[in-house]
Amino acid sequence: MRTGYVWEELYGWHDTGTHAAFVAPGGLVQPHRHVESAESKTRFAALVEVSGLGAKLDRIRAVPAAEDDVLAVHTAEHLERIRAGSAAPRGGDAGDGTSPFGPGGLEIALLAAGGAVQAASAVVTGRVTNAYALVRPPGHHARPETGMGFCVFANAAIAIQHVRRHHGVERVAVVDWDVHHGNGTEEVFAEDPDVLTISVHQDQLYPKGTGRLTDRGRGAGEGSAINVPLPAGTGNDGYLHAVEQVVLPALERHRPDLVVVASGFDPAALDPLGGMVVTTTGFRRMARAVLDAADRLCDGRVVMTHEGGYSPVYAPLCGVAVLEEMSGERTEVTDFLAEEYEDLPDQALRPHQAEAVAAAAAAAGLQRAGAAL
Amino acid sequence: MRTGYVWEELYGWHDTGTHAAFVAPGGLVQPHRHVESAESKTRFAALVEVSGLGAKLDRIRAVPAAEDDVLAVHTAEHLERIRAGSAAPRGGDAGDGTSPFGPGGLEIALLAAGGAVQAASAVVTGRVTNAYALVRPPGHHARPETGMGFCVFANAAIAIQHVRRHHGVERVAVVDWDVHHGNGTEEVFAEDPDVLTISVHQDQLYPKGTGRLTDRGRGAGEGSAINVPLPAGTGNDGYLHAVEQVVLPALERHRPDLVVVASGFDPAALDPLGGMVVTTTGFRRMARAVLDAADRLCDGRVVMTHEGGYSPVYAPLCGVAVLEEMSGERTEVTDFLAEEYEDLPDQALRPHQAEAVAAAAAAAGLQRAGAAL
Amino acid sequence: MRTGYVWEELYGWHDTGTHAAFVAPGGLVQPHRHVESAESKTRFAALVEVSGLGAKLDRIRAVPAAEDDVLAVHTAEHLERIRAGSAAPRGGDAGDGTSPFGPGGLEIALLAAGGAVQAASAVVTGRVTNAYALVRPPGHHARPETGMGFCVFANAAIAIQHVRRHHGVERVAVVDWDVHHGNGTEEVFAEDPDVLTISVHQDQLYPKGTGRLTDRGRGAGEGSAINVPLPAGTGNDGYLHAVEQVVLPALERHRPDLVVVASGFDPAALDPLGGMVVTTTGFRRMARAVLDAADRLCDGRVVMTHEGGYSPVYAPLCGVAVLEEMSGERTEVTDFLAEEYEDLPDQALRPHQAEAVAAAAAAAGLQRAGAAL
Amino acid sequence: MRTGYVWEELYGWHDTGTHAAFVAPGGLVQPHRHVESAESKTRFAALVEVSGLGAKLDRIRAVPAAEDDVLAVHTAEHLERIRAGSAAPRGGDAGDGTSPFGPGGLEIALLAAGGAVQAASAVVTGRVTNAYALVRPPGHHARPETGMGFCVFANAAIAIQHVRRHHGVERVAVVDWDVHHGNGTEEVFAEDPDVLTISVHQDQLYPKGTGRLTDRGRGAGEGSAINVPLPAGTGNDGYLHAVEQVVLPALERHRPDLVVVASGFDPAALDPLGGMVVTTTGFRRMARAVLDAADRLCDGRVVMTHEGGYSPVYAPLCGVAVLEEMSGERTEVTDFLAEEYEDLPDQALRPHQAEAVAAAAAAAGLQRAGAAL
Ligand SMILES: [Zn+2]
Ligand SMILES: [Zn+2]
Ligand SMILES: [Zn+2]
Ligand SMILES: [Zn+2]
Repeated sequence: MRTGYVWEELYGWHDTGTHAAFVAPGGLVQPHRHVESAESKTRFAALVEVSGLGAKLDRIRAVPAAEDDVLAVHTAEHLERIRAGSAAPRGGDAGDGTSPFGPGGLEIALLAAGGAVQAASAVVTGRVTNAYALVRPPGHHARPETGMGFCVFANAAIAIQHVRRHHGVERVAVVDWDVHHGNGTEEVFAEDPDVLTISVHQDQLYPKGTGRLTDRGRGAGEGSAINVPLPAGTGNDGYLHAVEQVVLPALERHRPDLVVVASGFDPAALDPLGGMVVTTTGFRRMARAVLDAADRLCDGRVVMTHEGGYSPVYAPLCGVAVLEEMSGERTEVTDFLAEEYEDLPDQALRPHQAEAVAAAAAAAGLQRAGAAL
Repeated sequence: MRTGYVWEELYGWHDTGTHAAFVAPGGLVQPHRHVESAESKTRFAALVEVSGLGAKLDRIRAVPAAEDDVLAVHTAEHLERIRAGSAAPRGGDAGDGTSPFGPGGLEIALLAAGGAVQAASAVVTGRVTNAYALVRPPGHHARPETGMGFCVFANAAIAIQHVRRHHGVERVAVVDWDVHHGNGTEEVFAEDPDVLTISVHQDQLYPKGTGRLTDRGRGAGEGSAINVPLPAGTGNDGYLHAVEQVVLPALERHRPDLVVVASGFDPAALDPLGGMVVTTTGFRRMARAVLDAADRLCDGRVVMTHEGGYSPVYAPLCGVAVLEEMSGERTEVTDFLAEEYEDLPDQALRPHQAEAVAAAAAAAGLQRAGAAL
Repeated sequence: MRTGYVWEELYGWHDTGTHAAFVAPGGLVQPHRHVESAESKTRFAALVEVSGLGAKLDRIRAVPAAEDDVLAVHTAEHLERIRAGSAAPRGGDAGDGTSPFGPGGLEIALLAAGGAVQAASAVVTGRVTNAYALVRPPGHHARPETGMGFCVFANAAIAIQHVRRHHGVERVAVVDWDVHHGNGTEEVFAEDPDVLTISVHQDQLYPKGTGRLTDRGRGAGEGSAINVPLPAGTGNDGYLHAVEQVVLPALERHRPDLVVVASGFDPAALDPLGGMVVTTTGFRRMARAVLDAADRLCDGRVVMTHEGGYSPVYAPLCGVAVLEEMSGERTEVTDFLAEEYEDLPDQALRPHQAEAVAAAAAAAGLQRAGAAL
Repeated sequence: MRTGYVWEELYGWHDTGTHAAFVAPGGLVQPHRHVESAESKTRFAALVEVSGLGAKLDRIRAVPAAEDDVLAVHTAEHLERIRAGSAAPRGGDAGDGTSPFGPGGLEIALLAAGGAVQAASAVVTGRVTNAYALVRPPGHHARPETGMGFCVFANAAIAIQHVRRHHGVERVAVVDWDVHHGNGTEEVFAEDPDVLTISVHQDQLYPKGTGRLTDRGRGAGEGSAINVPLPAGTGNDGYLHAVEQVVLPALERHRPDLVVVASGFDPAALDPLGGMVVTTTGFRRMARAVLDAADRLCDGRVVMTHEGGYSPVYAPLCGVAVLEEMSGERTEVTDFLAEEYEDLPDQALRPHQAEAVAAAAAAAGLQRAGAAL
């Protein structure tokens, strides 16, 4: 078994400027670092190397996504918007004012999408069993006609369409554990019965009005979208419960040829944006569960694309934990912040969380012993 | 009515070094900024000025706390520990390895305690009605014999003992809304029936094993400590419920001459350490409730000491909101991040939160109509 | 004698974004902090307070420069350019691509110009003897029709025109010791015989093609501009030699009612942009010489406007040294970096530097005993 | 021809803490980033990758230097000092108070020395023709008994002794173009006639009292040390003149088996510590000259170890320029800051610089046609 790994230094050059958290500065808003800064990614990549893990992974080089790959997901207007902003002396924004990029940002965004494409291609062609694409900017909020939520292009969706068009993949399932709703990926495949999208997220955190139980896909894709909105404060057991009660049975029902994970580490306890308290243990257990399901369903073919995760210190620990599960390799990295968060009472499943999960399972038509609390 | 305000540039020079979050770097821990960095405080102070609020406050200058004021709360051994670390070429740690300070750190810590002393003195002598001491390092975790949790000296406790010894104040109530348990303040006054300490915090976040319902003070102080441990994910309504069901009736029962608020903004939705989702609205409502109670009970005498709050962008917004409530002044500052967090479903009171509050009220022997959900 | 001091927190919010040194990022240019970042100014302001100097200065509050004050120096087109950039979602540039500002940047630039205006007004009306306007963005490169070199508005020139129009000042002399040529100020007054501009700078550093010996003003202003281009590597004695041989005799010849110093600390040894090796001693001696001349010529009326100086560590030390000279107050601040730079052999006057100074004196028609090497 | 390249992510983790420039904070010294921070190195390494150059170099992995390799240069006491500091909870200092390192710093310092060892071994064994060891912390100031000037171990000297002991190398020449005197390397080999050390540096910048014309080695090594102290303000032509008049003839006279370059980029115009105005063109020309000499003398065997260079923006441009010369590869990287500095009048050779070079040539006993101005 080999695990592929994508990381390019250029991802660290994606320039989100001086937004305060994610709001443009000016007036009474003092400039700061955009919360989606390079740090959480460059420190993740550094830890992969320093821990020795990098030497055991199959390094896959990204190449820019081809224009036709982008246009298989996005409108020409959106691509032009990014091209124009990229050529502007002060850069542009992907569409919502919170997703800035600098001059030349198109090149980096294409390389992010292309990193996901290469990772997925390496998996489906058998070069590697699974792969983690540590790309930036993220992608799961990007819709066909616009970027949003710090995302420029829908990296995972572009990769999925690529391997379906070029490598004979038919059925794909997306598992999105980013704390925000994976609205973009859902939208791309909303009418496509062959691509199942499952998003586990904090209810109504972002975007507003999407990711509800009742959002289940449209037309021919009715039922191919599953949402598991969870209350703030959910911890490791709550997340694993969602995985076991909804994600796994849905995967089994869908029988994908490939599983794509939109891997955001913003459900982490130390994340500034999310309100969850997940630790490395939680991410490790979720990864294990999904990887095992993929073993049963599709020869272990899993591609993870990096999405959110805004703690420069903790996201790298989560990332290495997931990579350890993917590769079977163990490092000497320890979760040096576990002491504070691992034993929180909030790590236990609480009744209202179980209810939320049960409601999601029911909405998805998943009947499974043990689905009730 | 006048509101006093303490801020000294030297607070921004407190040097917490390169800890990763709050763990000393080395080995597989890459150096970073300590999460308790100057930014959240210097940006708060800057916003006070830029918004025009500073011009309407009564600026109180801090002076270093006198040694006898420190020793009224701390052991001589602890003071010596800080003095020794302060004189060491690479600085020291206040006691637990997560509370570093640089060379000369003693001077800054004394100025922080002294800022609280001056603020409290200004309130009890009638120079101002209430006062906010924006001090650093924080204090509410510091115990008599040691600092911990980024705290060097117990600023609020030192101020309380000062005004009791020098200004005829007898009964004091401490309201601690920092997301972590105010264990240090509680310990200082654990056997003192005249000082009530109330801490509303995330259950078992920090420190471990303190801040439980059953921790109620000791000996003569039995009942003078009240703890309200809340589950992760609590929002504005949950916090206000805790204030209304526990804090306010406890204040009324205690009838303090002075109310001290340990004002941490780490229950905020954007805080990296806490797991709560409070917004400026929540802090504003809590402040209003406590201020109104103080109006009824002690001529409005409220001193707030700044404790935690680790979002460099959001803590300043929370701080200005509280200062607006204290002073009655309004600025043009808006919570530019409210859109994401203000109407989360998690802002509503949830049953398990109400149960936690009811349990705290019961443990504190507070019977009040409406205490039940 | 009183020394006025202008500093506003808003100056620290001027947003120069992510330029690499001073070049817009993109392509093979990795984003970084613009070299003209807030730090060198906010740390200067902090040191003024922490050293106790601030308490001894007369704090003058800035107000935004009036539009007619701006238009007395700049074209309406330039003001509109700044207004438009300020209203753009990603901000603008003052004219040359190296002078970025963020949304709302107009307000800050007007407050910088207004800080200079208030400082100058306080001096000429006798409220204070002299004053230091620690403003940002800087101003001495801004020409009537454009900003450039990180400068948006010509702060000093605007202040000069204000006091000439409103406070009966007639003759002004500008001494610019910034390491770059004060081209903007020179241009504003190029045809005005009543305003003498003297710039001591590194030859042909910036801008290219200006600040030459032969640039002496135009038309009626012929002779009212003096340039002293110095070779890289000039130190304290070389700078003082330039002051003694050119600046002082020129001031005496001009007999100004007011001396304005464009005070850049980028001739400092630790400055990243300049190639000079001046230390706090050098700035102190230059300030002393100019202040003494002003005592003789115009009752000590000196206004300094802050210009360049890009060492976040050393510029504050230079600034406090100059403020000590202006105010006659002494602090406990020591030049903790002096050991490395103070006794460099390069601090001595070298023959080729003396030649450069002599050439400047000759070009300016200044005959003074000792002007020859 | 192949060019080797050493870079390890762990080098970026060397923790120099919060020194102000290079002075420990405390009292009136506000904490800041140590000027020897990771940035100038991590950005250099990033640019190597983003430019595509990395893919064309032979990546040599560093391994920690063996203890006996360290002890071939340093005293056991010095190694123990570093070991003790490395084990201390707050780290240590290499000996002079300006050279801090964090907990675990020993491991990184050994990896830096080991990187130099591996690079030199790869060259002398013929795996590569030449190699650049981008290591951190730097080494050229470290003396046998102590670190200093940000240096912990004498990386280049350790590598030299290694290849002499293990790979049959006899004669080595060190060319040090760092702006500071390479005092440590000189001291290690002061009595060794087989290792010639040539240092071109700013006169008396650092350390004080070393690097003089009269410092020529001792005992059997008399004449094996050559110093070229240059005045502040020297530019490209001045540096190349020093190389042509002193370095090249000295290399030819010494006839080394291996040339080691102590490659500091702090003579750069944008460097905050040095007072020189060298640009990428200057470094490129110096590298070319040394490489060509090595071609003539020792089959092109050149090892460069990274030393100083404190501009996070400009040092990477200098580094890529040198790597281009070493490898013969060309990238699309342009010196985007050249416009300001490349055409300075200070780039020309000035008479007093030529005199300094001539004096150094004379002191070294080098007679060569054209050595006079
Ligand atoms: Zn997210
Ligand atoms: Zn806290
Ligand atoms: Zn300048
Ligand atoms: Zn150096």
